[in-house]
Amino acid sequence: MTHIEYDKDGKSFRESRASVPLLAPEWRARAVARLNSLTKPLGSLGRLEEIAARLVAIREEERPRCTKKVIFTLAADHGVTDEGVSAYPRAVTGQMVLNFLAGGAAINVLSRHGGIEVVVVDIGVDGDFGEVENLVHTKVRRGTRNMTKEPAMNEGELNSALGIGIELAAKAEKEGNTLIGTGEMGIGNTTAASAITSVLTGWPVAQVTGRGTGLDEPGLTRKIEVIERALEVNRPDPSDPLDLLRKVGGLEIAGLTGLIIGAASRRIPVVIDGFISTSAAAIACALEPKVRQFLFAGHRSSEPGHAALLEFIGDTPLLDLQMRLGEGTGAALAMSLIDAAAKIYDEMATFSSAGVSEASA
Amino acid sequence: MTHIEYDKDGKSFRESRASVPLLAPEWRARAVARLNSLTKPLGSLGRLEEIAARLVAIREEERPRCTKKVIFTLAADHGVTDEGVSAYPRAVTGQMVLNFLAGGAAINVLSRHGGIEVVVVDIGVDGDFGEVENLVHTKVRRGTRNMTKEPAMNEGELNSALGIGIELAAKAEKEGNTLIGTGEMGIGNTTAASAITSVLTGWPVAQVTGRGTGLDEPGLTRKIEVIERALEVNRPDPSDPLDLLRKVGGLEIAGLTGLIIGAASRRIPVVIDGFISTSAAAIACALEPKVRQFLFAGHRSSEPGHAALLEFIGDTPLLDLQMRLGEGTGAALAMSLIDAAAKIYDEMATFSSAGVSEASA
Repeated sequence: MTHIEYDKDGKSFRESRASVPLLAPEWRARAVARLNSLTKPLGSLGRLEEIAARLVAIREEERPRCTKKVIFTLAADHGVTDEGVSAYPRAVTGQMVLNFLAGGAAINVLSRHGGIEVVVVDIGVDGDFGEVENLVHTKVRRGTRNMTKEPAMNEGELNSALGIGIELAAKAEKEGNTLIGTGEMGIGNTTAASAITSVLTGWPVAQVTGRGTGLDEPGLTRKIEVIERALEVNRPDPSDPLDLLRKVGGLEIAGLTGLIIGAASRRIPVVIDGFISTSAAAIACALEPKVRQFLFAGHRSSEPGHAALLEFIGDTPLLDLQMRLGEGTGAALAMSLIDAAAKIYDEMATFSSAGVSEASA
Repeated sequence: MTHIEYDKDGKSFRESRASVPLLAPEWRARAVARLNSLTKPLGSLGRLEEIAARLVAIREEERPRCTKKVIFTLAADHGVTDEGVSAYPRAVTGQMVLNFLAGGAAINVLSRHGGIEVVVVDIGVDGDFGEVENLVHTKVRRGTRNMTKEPAMNEGELNSALGIGIELAAKAEKEGNTLIGTGEMGIGNTTAASAITSVLTGWPVAQVTGRGTGLDEPGLTRKIEVIERALEVNRPDPSDPLDLLRKVGGLEIAGLTGLIIGAASRRIPVVIDGFISTSAAAIACALEPKVRQFLFAGHRSSEPGHAALLEFIGDTPLLDLQMRLGEGTGAALAMSLIDAAAKIYDEMATFSSAGVSEASA
């Protein structure tokens, strides 16, 4: 896929959002009955059992598997980097895209390890990749606008980014993927995610803003002040998640919001990476609470705003390895646990098949 | 390997224990320098980076890999089950050994998932497997003695079990494994592990004793009373870990203690599974504190005594999935994270090789 027809009026996004299903308790109950027949003490596989039961309810399949897995790593730049909110220059976004395509980044290593395909998407990098192969070329704009001066996106740009996410979910389904991971790359995007977090959760900016890729103390102070200024200039409506996303979000965050809603509408479970990805998930959950049923929080980021977002979406991450890299790296590791849970459900012997005595009542 | 020459005087164990090396800080420093050159913000892969640095120092190799991985699942019975301390009958130990050999248990599924070999060892099952294939036949005794009446093992039995562990580590090394996981199966073994935990850590029996495979409230009360009685009868010396292990331990726990010390003496990192495995690791660390450097706590078990043991060995587990199954299941999942850390170290591009700009000072 190198071309996506942009959906500037947001039709595909609205349709997907309206079609996110409610999980049927019968499927879950059926899964719990099978889990209790497997050769292990009741409930002794803890969260793996919860995951397996939810996979059955999501997929409505007797034996759901996660054989084919994909991570979408969406890259975009941020106008707000003009204000000096990152330890790295903006050029790093495009340089890292090339690193992803060459297979040398952390997300490549961890995806190879987990048997996961990585699809790299230019949804808004401030640079021209020309005819480079294996990149999904869907640039909406060369980075967002500077949110301290005006909204980061206009309506058409927001809808295009959301629509690209919907298309990516459709692509994943068409290619037979049954587990999707979210990833992103964008110098400056912790600034956007912190702004979203503060407004969605009501936590003060200073408490949900961290050092990103490695700001020093004066840099952190400046970043907090920049976010406060952006919120003052844009006055996003806390009860309107799309208004919030458009004014202080990013193109990759909007793309991930679309991807998550698109996946949920297609009954594909989604593993959410860290802080940036969870900001997109939180917007998606605010727009349609049924989306929560399809999400697995992959890991706990060491960015301070992540805890507030996790509470907002009501999930506890599968991993806590003090990672804060993004790209989809936490999702890649967690997807292997989801896969393992599906295999436990499918492959384990039952007490009767293995001739193992059950517990006394 | 179907035969092991038992080492009743404990010579191989004493030699291994005396030869556990101290890690050289130079190797660690070299690893940190390489980690800081890779295309990611400094330290942003959190615990994966710590793991990679420790692997380099353990192996003293430029690019250590965990390509060949093995879990030893040691099975044994416990005389104390005569006192009614488990929800399952004793026969389940042997039945589960057959389930392991048939590939239908949780450890089989998770090891296949992680590309890990499972070696099943009869070190003390109360039953006869005859000529069954793929089982390591090293039965020391048909289960331990009932610790409420006498010491669980005599000196010769303890030394044999420790020596078997040393032999298993040697076997792992000879076959080219560079990562070992611990596993166990033994109806009644949370009783032994709780007794060890209480004496080693000084925590009261009631606080380190849980429901094991699923005891009800009266069962738990009885289990606590049984452990208190066993400690009263045997009066193990808290300053003598081998005395403690012999009197209230188990054959599989002693075997794992030997395995852990054998692996450390051979510079093979060991991933510790849950509560039972950590009781063996704690004995090993009490005998030789340098062993700690070679251990990775795989997961946090939901058995209440595990927290006390983790504090005792000074490690924080890689996973917390509310599992409490044993067999090596938590180790199997965690070994994949260790493997991932080794790959990150080996495969990631550097800033200079990928042409990515570094952070401003």
